[in-house]
Amino acid sequence: MTKPKDKFTVEVCFTPVLYPHILTQSNFIVVIVDILRATTSICTALACGVKAIIPVATLDEAREMKKKGYLVASERDGIVMDFADFGNSPFNFMKPEVKGKTIAYSTTNGTKAIQAASNDSNVVIGSFLNLSALAIWLIQQQKNVVILSSGWKNKFNLEDSVFAGALTSILLKNSGFVTECDSAKAAMDLWKLARNNLMEYIEKASHRHRLKKLVLDDVLEYTFTVDSTDVIPILNNGMIIKA
Amino acid sequence: MTKPKDKFTVEVCFTPVLYPHILTQSNFIVVIVDILRATTSICTALACGVKAIIPVATLDEAREMKKKGYLVASERDGIVMDFADFGNSPFNFMKPEVKGKTIAYSTTNGTKAIQAASNDSNVVIGSFLNLSALAIWLIQQQKNVVILSSGWKNKFNLEDSVFAGALTSILLKNSGFVTECDSAKAAMDLWKLARNNLMEYIEKASHRHRLKKLVLDDVLEYTFTVDSTDVIPILNNGMIIKA
Repeated sequence: MTKPKDKFTVEVCFTPVLYPHILTQSNFIVVIVDILRATTSICTALACGVKAIIPVATLDEAREMKKKGYLVASERDGIVMDFADFGNSPFNFMKPEVKGKTIAYSTTNGTKAIQAASNDSNVVIGSFLNLSALAIWLIQQQKNVVILSSGWKNKFNLEDSVFAGALTSILLKNSGFVTECDSAKAAMDLWKLARNNLMEYIEKASHRHRLKKLVLDDVLEYTFTVDSTDVIPILNNGMIIKA
Repeated sequence: MTKPKDKFTVEVCFTPVLYPHILTQSNFIVVIVDILRATTSICTALACGVKAIIPVATLDEAREMKKKGYLVASERDGIVMDFADFGNSPFNFMKPEVKGKTIAYSTTNGTKAIQAASNDSNVVIGSFLNLSALAIWLIQQQKNVVILSSGWKNKFNLEDSVFAGALTSILLKNSGFVTECDSAKAAMDLWKLARNNLMEYIEKASHRHRLKKLVLDDVLEYTFTVDSTDVIPILNNGMIIKA
């Protein structure tokens, strides 16, 4: 991406499938987004005293981690796996028994995005819960930013895109960031439409209806609570820890 | 995609990279969109009496077609190739000398999308020029609809997405179509924001600025003229002809 001197760029990538085609080539941080629900849960976990999260992509890896004695959070399509200690609802990570623990974490979409990005850049975890804290932290890093939505089974989804728009809007407003990315511009427009009533806007997201069918939508109001924590989860040697 | 009985679905695919991941599996028509500028030019060509367009993906194929005696329209990144008769500005297809001719056509993004979709479904060409006529034709076909944006080098772009939103909005308003596709919902929201002043909205599209740098933006106002033709270009045995 072309950029004015001394400005950093923001690029939005709507699904991991598009990640190989990003234009940002160097000196960048990737913000992983999976609002429903991996990145919301990871922010919750670290905010509630979980020591570290180890993201794993496959069920086999998750099963191996269980054998090694880790607590395991694992689900597919919203269903908790039988060998796992719990699924990926953020409420599970608020329990006293997870405090100080390291938890292996495997989910449908979120982990895939983390692994897609982890090889070539710094990775940080974003959700509405840590929106402002994350924006401030990104401004301090003095790097370009790529916001990578997890999507749903490789497709665009509304909730991650609206978050990407929220984060882009703050970065562009408060500091030396610019964007020439159409995805970022579209995401900001969606955030503009959604921001005054996030819950109502997200009513139309298809993933929200999938969760409803699975009776997993108890978490929605919590998920769209903006700025409930200052935690900045970063990926460090394969583990997600507090920055 | 789940759908109520007797309703047809609309799905939007923001770039050809995402096309292998569409959820629509059967009985569907793909609408190819490359507003700046292939599908706008194709609509113009057929409206102005060009007999047929043969889309070709590579420059080698385009060169071969020239040797075979076809008129050839070919450009990369907005630059006309030296062996070609002209580039892909719609104005080229308004000249009297193209009337009744078959033209081989190779472009940066549009042809790729046509070829991505051509193997497994019916293909039709969409642009703002034939928006309403296309919507009416699609309603008559009694099939599911996938709107495939060409994007820019595999990335999301605003102008194709806004068009996808415009077409989806008409289909959902006037007939037996439904959507559970978040991309379609986002596209409709972008169209809502853009529709009252398309030219102003598209000012922020990055591709529009690329064209401006190449001094190719003389065509913009024409491109965003809604409903200037009733032509329905369809793909038939590798050739684009009037339906």
